[in-house]
Amino acid sequence: MVILQLSLPISMDLQKNGAINGSARIRRKRTSKFHCTLPPRLFISNSQQPQYPNLLFPSTNQSVAAIVLEDGSRSKLYPLTKKISEGAIPIAANYRLVDAVVSNCINSNINRIYALTQFNSTSLNSHLSRAYAVQGLGKEGFVEVITAYQSLEDDDWFQGAADAVRRCLWLMEEYPVTEFLILPGHHLYKMDYQKIIEAHRNSRADMTIAALSAGREQDPNFGILRLNSENQVLEFRLKSDSEPITFVSEESPMKCNDIAYREFSSMGIYVINRDIMVKLLREHFPKANDFASEVIPGAISLGMKVQAFLFDGYWEDMRSIEAFYLANMESTKKADMAFNSFFDKKSPIYTLPRVLPPTHVTDAIIIDSVIGDGCILGRCKIKGTVVGMKTRIGDGAVIEDSVIMGSDIYQMEDIQRSGVDRKGLDIPIGIGEDTQIRKAIIDKNARIGRNVLIINKDSVREGNSEANGYMISEGIVVVLHSAVIPNGSII
Amino acid sequence: MVILQLSLPISMDLQKNGAINGSARIRRKRTSKFHCTLPPRLFISNSQQPQYPNLLFPSTNQSVAAIVLEDGSRSKLYPLTKKISEGAIPIAANYRLVDAVVSNCINSNINRIYALTQFNSTSLNSHLSRAYAVQGLGKEGFVEVITAYQSLEDDDWFQGAADAVRRCLWLMEEYPVTEFLILPGHHLYKMDYQKIIEAHRNSRADMTIAALSAGREQDPNFGILRLNSENQVLEFRLKSDSEPITFVSEESPMKCNDIAYREFSSMGIYVINRDIMVKLLREHFPKANDFASEVIPGAISLGMKVQAFLFDGYWEDMRSIEAFYLANMESTKKADMAFNSFFDKKSPIYTLPRVLPPTHVTDAIIIDSVIGDGCILGRCKIKGTVVGMKTRIGDGAVIEDSVIMGSDIYQMEDIQRSGVDRKGLDIPIGIGEDTQIRKAIIDKNARIGRNVLIINKDSVREGNSEANGYMISEGIVVVLHSAVIPNGSII
Amino acid sequence: MVILQLSLPISMDLQKNGAINGSARIRRKRTSKFHCTLPPRLFISNSQQPQYPNLLFPSTNQSVAAIVLEDGSRSKLYPLTKKISEGAIPIAANYRLVDAVVSNCINSNINRIYALTQFNSTSLNSHLSRAYAVQGLGKEGFVEVITAYQSLEDDDWFQGAADAVRRCLWLMEEYPVTEFLILPGHHLYKMDYQKIIEAHRNSRADMTIAALSAGREQDPNFGILRLNSENQVLEFRLKSDSEPITFVSEESPMKCNDIAYREFSSMGIYVINRDIMVKLLREHFPKANDFASEVIPGAISLGMKVQAFLFDGYWEDMRSIEAFYLANMESTKKADMAFNSFFDKKSPIYTLPRVLPPTHVTDAIIIDSVIGDGCILGRCKIKGTVVGMKTRIGDGAVIEDSVIMGSDIYQMEDIQRSGVDRKGLDIPIGIGEDTQIRKAIIDKNARIGRNVLIINKDSVREGNSEANGYMISEGIVVVLHSAVIPNGSII
Amino acid sequence: MVILQLSLPISMDLQKNGAINGSARIRRKRTSKFHCTLPPRLFISNSQQPQYPNLLFPSTNQSVAAIVLEDGSRSKLYPLTKKISEGAIPIAANYRLVDAVVSNCINSNINRIYALTQFNSTSLNSHLSRAYAVQGLGKEGFVEVITAYQSLEDDDWFQGAADAVRRCLWLMEEYPVTEFLILPGHHLYKMDYQKIIEAHRNSRADMTIAALSAGREQDPNFGILRLNSENQVLEFRLKSDSEPITFVSEESPMKCNDIAYREFSSMGIYVINRDIMVKLLREHFPKANDFASEVIPGAISLGMKVQAFLFDGYWEDMRSIEAFYLANMESTKKADMAFNSFFDKKSPIYTLPRVLPPTHVTDAIIIDSVIGDGCILGRCKIKGTVVGMKTRIGDGAVIEDSVIMGSDIYQMEDIQRSGVDRKGLDIPIGIGEDTQIRKAIIDKNARIGRNVLIINKDSVREGNSEANGYMISEGIVVVLHSAVIPNGSII
Repeated sequence: MVILQLSLPISMDLQKNGAINGSARIRRKRTSKFHCTLPPRLFISNSQQPQYPNLLFPSTNQSVAAIVLEDGSRSKLYPLTKKISEGAIPIAANYRLVDAVVSNCINSNINRIYALTQFNSTSLNSHLSRAYAVQGLGKEGFVEVITAYQSLEDDDWFQGAADAVRRCLWLMEEYPVTEFLILPGHHLYKMDYQKIIEAHRNSRADMTIAALSAGREQDPNFGILRLNSENQVLEFRLKSDSEPITFVSEESPMKCNDIAYREFSSMGIYVINRDIMVKLLREHFPKANDFASEVIPGAISLGMKVQAFLFDGYWEDMRSIEAFYLANMESTKKADMAFNSFFDKKSPIYTLPRVLPPTHVTDAIIIDSVIGDGCILGRCKIKGTVVGMKTRIGDGAVIEDSVIMGSDIYQMEDIQRSGVDRKGLDIPIGIGEDTQIRKAIIDKNARIGRNVLIINKDSVREGNSEANGYMISEGIVVVLHSAVIPNGSII
Repeated sequence: MVILQLSLPISMDLQKNGAINGSARIRRKRTSKFHCTLPPRLFISNSQQPQYPNLLFPSTNQSVAAIVLEDGSRSKLYPLTKKISEGAIPIAANYRLVDAVVSNCINSNINRIYALTQFNSTSLNSHLSRAYAVQGLGKEGFVEVITAYQSLEDDDWFQGAADAVRRCLWLMEEYPVTEFLILPGHHLYKMDYQKIIEAHRNSRADMTIAALSAGREQDPNFGILRLNSENQVLEFRLKSDSEPITFVSEESPMKCNDIAYREFSSMGIYVINRDIMVKLLREHFPKANDFASEVIPGAISLGMKVQAFLFDGYWEDMRSIEAFYLANMESTKKADMAFNSFFDKKSPIYTLPRVLPPTHVTDAIIIDSVIGDGCILGRCKIKGTVVGMKTRIGDGAVIEDSVIMGSDIYQMEDIQRSGVDRKGLDIPIGIGEDTQIRKAIIDKNARIGRNVLIINKDSVREGNSEANGYMISEGIVVVLHSAVIPNGSII
Repeated sequence: MVILQLSLPISMDLQKNGAINGSARIRRKRTSKFHCTLPPRLFISNSQQPQYPNLLFPSTNQSVAAIVLEDGSRSKLYPLTKKISEGAIPIAANYRLVDAVVSNCINSNINRIYALTQFNSTSLNSHLSRAYAVQGLGKEGFVEVITAYQSLEDDDWFQGAADAVRRCLWLMEEYPVTEFLILPGHHLYKMDYQKIIEAHRNSRADMTIAALSAGREQDPNFGILRLNSENQVLEFRLKSDSEPITFVSEESPMKCNDIAYREFSSMGIYVINRDIMVKLLREHFPKANDFASEVIPGAISLGMKVQAFLFDGYWEDMRSIEAFYLANMESTKKADMAFNSFFDKKSPIYTLPRVLPPTHVTDAIIIDSVIGDGCILGRCKIKGTVVGMKTRIGDGAVIEDSVIMGSDIYQMEDIQRSGVDRKGLDIPIGIGEDTQIRKAIIDKNARIGRNVLIINKDSVREGNSEANGYMISEGIVVVLHSAVIPNGSII
Repeated sequence: MVILQLSLPISMDLQKNGAINGSARIRRKRTSKFHCTLPPRLFISNSQQPQYPNLLFPSTNQSVAAIVLEDGSRSKLYPLTKKISEGAIPIAANYRLVDAVVSNCINSNINRIYALTQFNSTSLNSHLSRAYAVQGLGKEGFVEVITAYQSLEDDDWFQGAADAVRRCLWLMEEYPVTEFLILPGHHLYKMDYQKIIEAHRNSRADMTIAALSAGREQDPNFGILRLNSENQVLEFRLKSDSEPITFVSEESPMKCNDIAYREFSSMGIYVINRDIMVKLLREHFPKANDFASEVIPGAISLGMKVQAFLFDGYWEDMRSIEAFYLANMESTKKADMAFNSFFDKKSPIYTLPRVLPPTHVTDAIIIDSVIGDGCILGRCKIKGTVVGMKTRIGDGAVIEDSVIMGSDIYQMEDIQRSGVDRKGLDIPIGIGEDTQIRKAIIDKNARIGRNVLIINKDSVREGNSEANGYMISEGIVVVLHSAVIPNGSII
């Protein structure tokens, strides 16, 4: 099999020679426009047969530590992040956002996982500690949450991703791994990280960056890569909104046509050799706070070998309320085994195990929806909707194209538990009778009364009505965590 | 409050004297017909306010060990018990039968639980070990499964409940409990065992037997109690099918009217003082195999004080396929918090925690049903049905009044896993397209083809067609575990 | 038993009357000077028989949440706290300091525990998550670590204990407890918190403070209480080093003699009613950072009922390196069951469970010492010493009156793991051959060479030689974490 | 064997050439008689560098299920097996015998483990469930204990190893493994099973048997193998005590000299292809109870390819009290990292994690001994002894060359717990003051009084004094579990 051979060192060398040698490059140019600009062998596909670890390298669970980072910008998913960390936001009824990345690690045989966090960190700390203390990680495996902390030398918070890694490096150095795998914690995708690590090792790179092909909308903070035909990163720049990206480098104006198509977006996923990481953060750039804007361009300027690893599977960046909404909508589509990743036994999504009663349905019409565990559904109609765990939906309710995050408790308990008359407690948690909801996100524990209309009746694009328990973002109504929407309200 | 006072020893003694003394009896007779025959104070109700443990006694988690026993008769739930133990049968979509009793223990603050088993024991062993190794049992708590074993002295299997307890007594003696609580593992009910233990201690009894009021159909093997007005058990007999039960004792023909109504059915639940248990099984009745037919009548004949504790909550004995079916049907009724016990936060039902994707529904009408975790429902209609975990239902299917136990794996995996062409594997696990099922139990991992009718078309009452993958019991079609029902079949 | 009776409501009333009535007070005055000022009934003793929870109140595991706080002053145990939180410091060979308080909670049937931390928090977070994720906490129990975090409203660190509780109150309000129990995390003692909670409830106080009798040296930050004869706190002041404490209140100069003896030291342990906590932190003193200097005096000034609960068992405040050293020395004393708390089955100390090989001893004389799990001891002499887990001691070594914290790994692994020649790696972790150590603390993973003398040869009282891997505090040599002490060194 | 040779560096190639090339073979013949007949490359050594899984085969954790079997003969380790299964016997202070084999599995990346048991199975069931429910097994891993059970078809106990596997095959077939790995549960050794599986796959064998070189004393029930030069098994016979083994096969009398040295002992470890297992047990030999005497000779006679895999590391068969004693003695030898397997981080021994206080020593001389967790040692002398967990040794005691298994509880508790005066309870658990023990095994919870001499004073070789709490086997005194040896006894 050609692909496999190409992944062996000797082939790589040959290929590399070919890349230098003009005729080899020409040959590739001839084959097709596509091959000319994008060697397809390095794209991984989720549907490929499992390949067993390369003979020459240690297995990932002995040699790689993953570092899951939270996104720096806090307001993208506001108000969902008002009280909890981005990674702890419920998604697809049964999961939290960070489960996607942690599950990728487990399924990639990487079981030493650090999660660095400081923003509303309790939620993430609690979720990860409870979900992964017991399961899935095998001997010596762990998910260790490192929240920002004070020390005698320093009282600062993390100043950026690179700063966070630097501050925790003394701790993460403990295990004798050969590479660190940097992972943003707020993306939704499936990737077998063993493949990027294998490519990294085969290319003898100092650093390897996962990249999407151009034209994919994604986080502008992760940067744009310009590659040569060997997928080596020649240039790495942050996308600027004002300035169009042009990669006409001065050294090689002749290659312009060729190179013009070799623009890729960084996914913010980096494989970095352990010793390179130490040198970059402590010696070369001891003041750098960020990888994309400082450390990586710096590494390239130092002449380090930085490679790209191209990925073309499903990938979603939770860059906005709308993106989050759409990712949820994706999970409601037909549970075709080959498509819907949640039913994929080979690479399951892990999360906190639970013991909940079965969903009880009185009389419901349910279309193109996913229903989380332990719901109580009355005589209602649900269409194109994610219904989160422990959701209660009253008789006569109609829910369409929405994300209901569910609740932590069943209402009866809540009233018993609080023991006091708090305002709004007469409206139970869940969706009230005869209420209609369309294109909305209902955060956890919200109390939507009877005869409520949540339909964005004025077609508002952006609006903040937090005092009334909701916001509108990109036309999507977001009802806040624990908000109370009185009977008969119209939104 | 009178009830509380009466539960104190000194009041009991006074009352007891009254029972002997004629005038006292007359007084009671006067009070009301109801009191005359059935002291209501000793019935417990599940809706009562929680009462805190009595000051004078140690809490149950320090002083009581529960012994969960399997039913002796193996064929009652056949064919569901073909491969698995009765306690391991899935029930109410998300649970196993034994979870009801173990959860009662946990909710009653009893965390030393032995489960004695020998019949298809692997299933029960596996479920209990995995479900309760981690959760719910607090410090020093455990669920220890004791399967029948060979030893140097003895190669026999358990010969009955009393024999099983005797053989394991050396092991269960290890913890210094004061009472053993004997519990049949195949009943469905909620009981706060702290109440029967408190009543047992207050009455200074040697043994206390939980009992249902007369007229309730139940397991004939557990016996019939005749009580005096102090709820002391005067006589304990097994119900004989041929002979009607009459309690007109010769000694006291005058009391006939009074006593005729004081007939109760044993629930097979016994609180027995530790030292009494040792003496009964080792000294007095070292050859007795059974509690109901041998040990308890023997204890009464020895003059031991045997009390009854009356219970009137929901209780279901899995004495037949029909009873099992009806218990499942009960769980589909409206999830009124006060009624449907699975949503009761105060006394939740525990089971094996799980990580499953949300249920995906393409286009379903669901009426009065419960849906377990991780199902894949196509364009189907489901009515009055229990849909177990990981059930797949194809487009056009109509399921009514049935129990679908679900499956262990999603079909796609199975075909990949087996890697061979086994007969029937072309029919995937689950319910095929355009299939109709009415009043049936579909055991786990069954493969029901397309256009199948499971409707008991000939209205058979009892029938065995195991070779074809099903049986009919009391008019209910039972499709066997892993059975294959070809496309177009009509049952 | 008088003590028990006094704890019942009716007795309390009688006593209260007596306290008001002059003759009763006189009677008490007669008995002894001590009794006159200090009602002994409220002292609890660790050796008492277990008492079962009072009938009238809910059990602690349903109604109390513990909040474990870290000490504000970071330098007291420096350099042990250089990299780790105070609570995570190893103590008594097998434990971490915080285990004492968490174990008290578990043994007191309190299983909702929050730990608030921000200083080198990773160590504590990691220990608590791993140690208590699985064991001991029963259903619904948890140890939740809340590290300081950023939120949209606020980027500040915790500004003090009261500020920390206020910032996390929204989260800790989640469970409907009736009281919060505030606990400093760095004290060593055994207390059944059920007793202070019972006293708190019986006295219908708003807040109850645990206090030591006068004359006990302790943390000056926790304050001094002046009590009336009912143990109500009349005044609460911080001890000032310069100014002697005098409690001659102006209102009652006549009682001076009497009151002069009723001075107690706060232990920093507070039971505070949930609603009182909310009012104090949010309404009355929304800017207060500290309990002892602000919130508690404020509560008294507001007229709230603040009670004292007197404690006279073993209690050690880790207020200095010397105090930490002495607490370790205490654990080496004879393992009299009634004294040495680590062997006390009734109230065991919990910690992270471990799987280690047995300690191997080649030829050792060991006197009055405790040996942690998995040590490798050569031909050595060990006296009055705490030997932590995985400690290696070479042939010819003599260790006296010291605390060896042990190591995380066995040396052979380390060399293999690092794979590089780091300075000092030729000296293996542990104590080298023919080395002598007296009155020292050897922090984890230190590499003490051969023929080293650690004897504080110059009898230095305080000294900082961190560059050479050690400090001297109160005459105790402290070798730093991972320090390398070359062969032949003399300290 | 080409593939394996290629995976070894350059020397393998030379060897391969040598094997084919006549002159090279001659050279090897010259070196020694042993090398002539036994290609040394197939011996595995525990000290080799880790080798990563072969590229061509699936990793073991996806494709192999281990089946741990208990020894059929129950009396070999009597009286240690009086109440517990062989696999549950404590060994080397901190472990149970079965931990060795289960740890081998975990360290070999095999995480689907079935343990089949019927003899005193509770102890093994309890140990395995608790020890391995949580740790070490990664996602989808398990240790599932299958005890003998009754079913509707069959009430028999397991009739032998092959019968046990056959009865449980329906259950173990569930996972789509490619090979089963049969492992006796009572051997002590370290083996990387990945190597035997790799060899098995490379040789495309139907079955591969692990074998020891001749001359090693071992379990006669596992049989003798005669191999050809390719390590294929030509003949498999049980050793008969009366009849000497001779392998002069009729077909090849000329090779006699050569073959006479190619006699190996089976270790009872078999790798068997899944489909071959099914065919052998269900089709070819449906009545066979034993592997060694029936199934394996049968497979050879059917012409199946049966290979041998030679092992020459430390291996101990617990075939007698003496062997068990010697294995314990082995663990007391110097903790040389390269030798003493318990300190080997690469392949640690797993067992039930525990939380115990550190060992307290008052004044002890300890020589060449291992000390388990949580002991209480007075003024005593311990030499060449294994001291199990929670052992208490009184002042003046002298223990030499013995195995003290330790106890489940500390004595103080026991007396409190029992609450009654049982005979012998005045003698606390552990070793009394001034008692001397030499060359003895003290089973758990024994109560050895003061001034006892356990020295086998009459030099008895075999003796049974069970009524007095001990036996003598091969000159080793074995004090029974929970036995009471009165003060002043001399044994």
